[in-house]
Amino acid sequence: MSQSNNDFENPIPVSPTRRSFLNRTAAGLVGVGLSAGLAACNKGTDKDAPAAAAPADGKAGAAGGVDYSKYEVPPGQLDTYYAFSSGGHSGEVRIYGLPSGRCFKRIPVFNIDCLVGWGITNESKKIMGTNPDGTLKYWTGDTHHVHPSYTDGTYDGKYIFVNDKIHSRLARVRMDTMECDKIVELPNVQGFHGVFPDKRDPVDDKINHTTRVFCGNEFHIPQPNDGRDLNDPKKYFCLFTCVDAETLEPRWQVKVDGNMDLVATSYDGKLAASNQYNTEGGVHYEEMMSAERDACVFFNIARIEAAVKAGKSFTIGTSKVPVVDGTKAANTDPKTALTCYVPVPKNPHGVNASPDGKYYACSGKLSPTATLIEHDLVLKWFNGEVKEPRDCVVAEPEIGLGPLHTGFDNRGNAYTTLFLDSQIVKWNLEAAIKAFKGDKTAVPVVDRIDVNYQPGHGFTSMGETKEPDGKFFISDNKFSKDRFLPVGPLHPETAQLIDISGDKMKLVADHAVYSEPHDSIVIRRDIIKTRQVYNIDEFPNAVKDPKECRVERKGKQVTVYLTSQAPAFGLREFTVKKGDEVTIILTNLDKVEDLTHGFAIPKYNINFIVNPQETKSVTFKADKPGVYWCYCTNFCHALHLEMRSRMLVEA
Amino acid sequence: MSQSNNDFENPIPVSPTRRSFLNRTAAGLVGVGLSAGLAACNKGTDKDAPAAAAPADGKAGAAGGVDYSKYEVPPGQLDTYYAFSSGGHSGEVRIYGLPSGRCFKRIPVFNIDCLVGWGITNESKKIMGTNPDGTLKYWTGDTHHVHPSYTDGTYDGKYIFVNDKIHSRLARVRMDTMECDKIVELPNVQGFHGVFPDKRDPVDDKINHTTRVFCGNEFHIPQPNDGRDLNDPKKYFCLFTCVDAETLEPRWQVKVDGNMDLVATSYDGKLAASNQYNTEGGVHYEEMMSAERDACVFFNIARIEAAVKAGKSFTIGTSKVPVVDGTKAANTDPKTALTCYVPVPKNPHGVNASPDGKYYACSGKLSPTATLIEHDLVLKWFNGEVKEPRDCVVAEPEIGLGPLHTGFDNRGNAYTTLFLDSQIVKWNLEAAIKAFKGDKTAVPVVDRIDVNYQPGHGFTSMGETKEPDGKFFISDNKFSKDRFLPVGPLHPETAQLIDISGDKMKLVADHAVYSEPHDSIVIRRDIIKTRQVYNIDEFPNAVKDPKECRVERKGKQVTVYLTSQAPAFGLREFTVKKGDEVTIILTNLDKVEDLTHGFAIPKYNINFIVNPQETKSVTFKADKPGVYWCYCTNFCHALHLEMRSRMLVEA
Repeated sequence: MSQSNNDFENPIPVSPTRRSFLNRTAAGLVGVGLSAGLAACNKGTDKDAPAAAAPADGKAGAAGGVDYSKYEVPPGQLDTYYAFSSGGHSGEVRIYGLPSGRCFKRIPVFNIDCLVGWGITNESKKIMGTNPDGTLKYWTGDTHHVHPSYTDGTYDGKYIFVNDKIHSRLARVRMDTMECDKIVELPNVQGFHGVFPDKRDPVDDKINHTTRVFCGNEFHIPQPNDGRDLNDPKKYFCLFTCVDAETLEPRWQVKVDGNMDLVATSYDGKLAASNQYNTEGGVHYEEMMSAERDACVFFNIARIEAAVKAGKSFTIGTSKVPVVDGTKAANTDPKTALTCYVPVPKNPHGVNASPDGKYYACSGKLSPTATLIEHDLVLKWFNGEVKEPRDCVVAEPEIGLGPLHTGFDNRGNAYTTLFLDSQIVKWNLEAAIKAFKGDKTAVPVVDRIDVNYQPGHGFTSMGETKEPDGKFFISDNKFSKDRFLPVGPLHPETAQLIDISGDKMKLVADHAVYSEPHDSIVIRRDIIKTRQVYNIDEFPNAVKDPKECRVERKGKQVTVYLTSQAPAFGLREFTVKKGDEVTIILTNLDKVEDLTHGFAIPKYNINFIVNPQETKSVTFKADKPGVYWCYCTNFCHALHLEMRSRMLVEA
Repeated sequence: MSQSNNDFENPIPVSPTRRSFLNRTAAGLVGVGLSAGLAACNKGTDKDAPAAAAPADGKAGAAGGVDYSKYEVPPGQLDTYYAFSSGGHSGEVRIYGLPSGRCFKRIPVFNIDCLVGWGITNESKKIMGTNPDGTLKYWTGDTHHVHPSYTDGTYDGKYIFVNDKIHSRLARVRMDTMECDKIVELPNVQGFHGVFPDKRDPVDDKINHTTRVFCGNEFHIPQPNDGRDLNDPKKYFCLFTCVDAETLEPRWQVKVDGNMDLVATSYDGKLAASNQYNTEGGVHYEEMMSAERDACVFFNIARIEAAVKAGKSFTIGTSKVPVVDGTKAANTDPKTALTCYVPVPKNPHGVNASPDGKYYACSGKLSPTATLIEHDLVLKWFNGEVKEPRDCVVAEPEIGLGPLHTGFDNRGNAYTTLFLDSQIVKWNLEAAIKAFKGDKTAVPVVDRIDVNYQPGHGFTSMGETKEPDGKFFISDNKFSKDRFLPVGPLHPETAQLIDISGDKMKLVADHAVYSEPHDSIVIRRDIIKTRQVYNIDEFPNAVKDPKECRVERKGKQVTVYLTSQAPAFGLREFTVKKGDEVTIILTNLDKVEDLTHGFAIPKYNINFIVNPQETKSVTFKADKPGVYWCYCTNFCHALHLEMRSRMLVEA
């Protein structure tokens, strides 16, 4: 059985001998890179031998000593946590409940969602961005990381920030309505990957909440990328960008050596960090992994902003955003340096700040290690009190193959995803520090558990705040293989729920996820305060009374003012002429929570919804004569089917 | 507590007195229509009093005597059933596992899905349909009903058919790959609502599988709808369409009185049925519900096809599809009639065939009744052996307020959703027939259970086949209100799982669903046989060897032949010129199940995936000079981040 190594019991920790087989030479790592990944992928590919047959009677019960019923959420009960998850190349953000794994909402961001009308209404098109002819500029996106805003070191329930890697855009989601309200495209950036909000101002200690969002940049390109230096990679470089959390305008950028990946921020606001691969500046993968060590780069926010204020900046192409030079060559004196490049083993993936604010865990990916960097030592390096950046490293335990991302509990432990080993490894920070100092009795690795399969991101409940609760770990796995009923060539991925409250980790649920649950955040439910009904006065174009429904014409421009109130629209019919540019403004006058209406126009490629007391609009050309029954697409009432309005387009 | 009437115990059956309050006059029904819906919607709107707090320790346990652990699917075990669900105005189809409720897949059909590249690749655009300039014709859709193909009265796992109500399109999903392979737009139809495949040929008994798909038509329009008869509703009419299940080309249409809604088909292939509202031909909702009775219309398939063959047809506008006249006025002689209009109480919603092939249950919606029509009696009417169409009715039990859709078990019971009562009512067919005949001891209603809230469709496991198993009922509810953690104004809907295997129905799970779980089908898992890896030879344009990777130019048309094999694309870089029309053909040479790659081009609005051994292509204009790092968007390997190819666009 393909399942034999994935019992519910904790697996036997893999022997250190096996973990040490990895040849640390470049050639060895190429070997691992090219073959071990595939070998691992071969787990469980025998489709005739499914993971496990469900009992004939549907009875599940406890297996391997795990009482699964502890993690159920029966009908009528609420989940304990919210999980906010990036949707990868679906371009969206998702909201789940935990421990149930129920998906409550998709938040369209960079994608078109014809259910809500995202990318269809005038309001959403304005946020997404349009070409001069009014068509959408982009409708693809690749959301990698979701991180909410902070106040006093924990989530404040105000905003979620999320990146688009394809088109280098940063988006913001309002957490009261759970809708995207702003999107900005970062100038001169390709491959915007990691994103993290700051937690405090580096200078003004009274500003204890998020005011900046930091953006890593993975793909180095010619600057500006207008056709120059096309095949001269030595001239390519990347930019680290700071965006204003309120206006979502870029404030400044830093020119950096290497490719940046994830981003972490300090609890005191003084530093931002980004792990780097391809510090070699290669353009082929074997070049990208030729050096023994890459880096975790730290940004001294106060110094960068002082430099920008002092005008020590330049601009690139048509962008007006000030750029400062953060390359190694330009920052040789620690006492004035804007950046500090801490060497870590090759091609690291992931950097995470520990909840006590003391450490950054940077993963190895092509090295079987995690690197622990001490925050105070980095600050001391910037003060000239530490000689080499590498001296900021306080631990580097061997933890397993393909370490990527790390979460933390409230008991001094870290949980790192191991992509190649398909495991989560639990390791103790203090033990790792002791072992690094030479204490041979210190054993950093405490526990490990198989996951199914190839985990990417992993995160603990409240683990990216100063108040982690040490209850759950979610493993967002890249492959599900045989864990679910087969649904054709495109498999779901898995988000596995692990109980970390005890000494041993326990796998307690497999949640199937439409590709791709790239990264997630687990938040206590008391933190989130949503609104269920809009305030009609927030919409300047609201049609506040059915009596205001009308058709107004200015030449060929026609505006239709419309209301919805179950089971009728404010106009039963309205007439326009072929060739008119028609704008329909629709206000939902229903005030009852959950009473959403839809509005579709057959043959005109239009559908959108209006939530209670919300106003939205669409604009289109009436290019087809005839009768078009506009109808409510969101079931609202016993007479929902009868809720229609006739658009008469005169030839 | 808003929850007080929704305990886990079966509620007390509502007294017949309360159920009889409904005044059957038109005025009374208007009253119900306009107010009862909203009153029902007010359930549970107090957001400060959530449904129920989760226990502090996360412990759920059994409540009201239900052992929820019986319905769990622990990690590593597989679900017992597949559920295929239409996605409403999201335009997609979804696959869930039951009893877990885990969502395994979204199948993009009428919507753009930038994860898989649906609406982006040349292949998907061809299926979806394009304008002369190559842009997509539509990217909105409203999928209402999903019904798989049949062989010998049960599912054969070959196709799923699904409608789009907005643009009157029928789509087909292949069940081996779970991908849409064909879409057709029905001519002269607006508001294509119900869809059902046939189960057998009406004439040739050897053809015991689906060869036709029947399509109901809700909105009556001028014919053709080119600007004529704009505001002359008396001239509007609807068409019932038969589509070939293999070619997906329309075979014939029937002109019908009234608005058609759902569709059902007989097990012997002889009849198709559609419930009708607005037989009044009204254009405002009060007109649409003015008559005491509407109808369930039956189509005599053999006679219609004989009439078409005999040339007794006409065409409409530019459509070449033959249309026969199925109006009442043209079909007064039963012995030659193409259609039979069986009167049922006003504005029915839903018609479902019983698994024994004997009956059709037609719901009341604005009447508290279900109407049971006997198949053999309808056939006898067509033979002149039954006087009035209404004589085909064999039962009409009062079952509750707002009855919509009915499922069946294997013990002679029906389960009908009650939209206004927010209940599922279980009633016995034989008892209903006895009561209709005057047996006052017969009690049709056996049980009822509250659902949360306002159910639309409901369906039993395997209940639309000749082999229902009587195990589960799913209630697709339109409102969730306070059943889940709040996520802003747009609530999830609920799919509630009910165990119907015993005498009393038991609510066993609340599954949250992104709007809108419009209709679903529950299929035993042994019926579905999927392929996990494509056959490379099925793609005529496949690039079968990395050595075949190349760039070919014909004037300004450039074709890039590309392969993917973790962790590299077949070309590390390729060069085109500004102004070129570039086609990229990408074959995924990886053969390992679940090893999907993605391909994104920054700033060019392109992303799509290629599953193992699959080939896809995109075409775009290279209108921006510079370096563009095409990258793999579907995590595939430890060196996934390094899996890139540089597109160099020369100025």
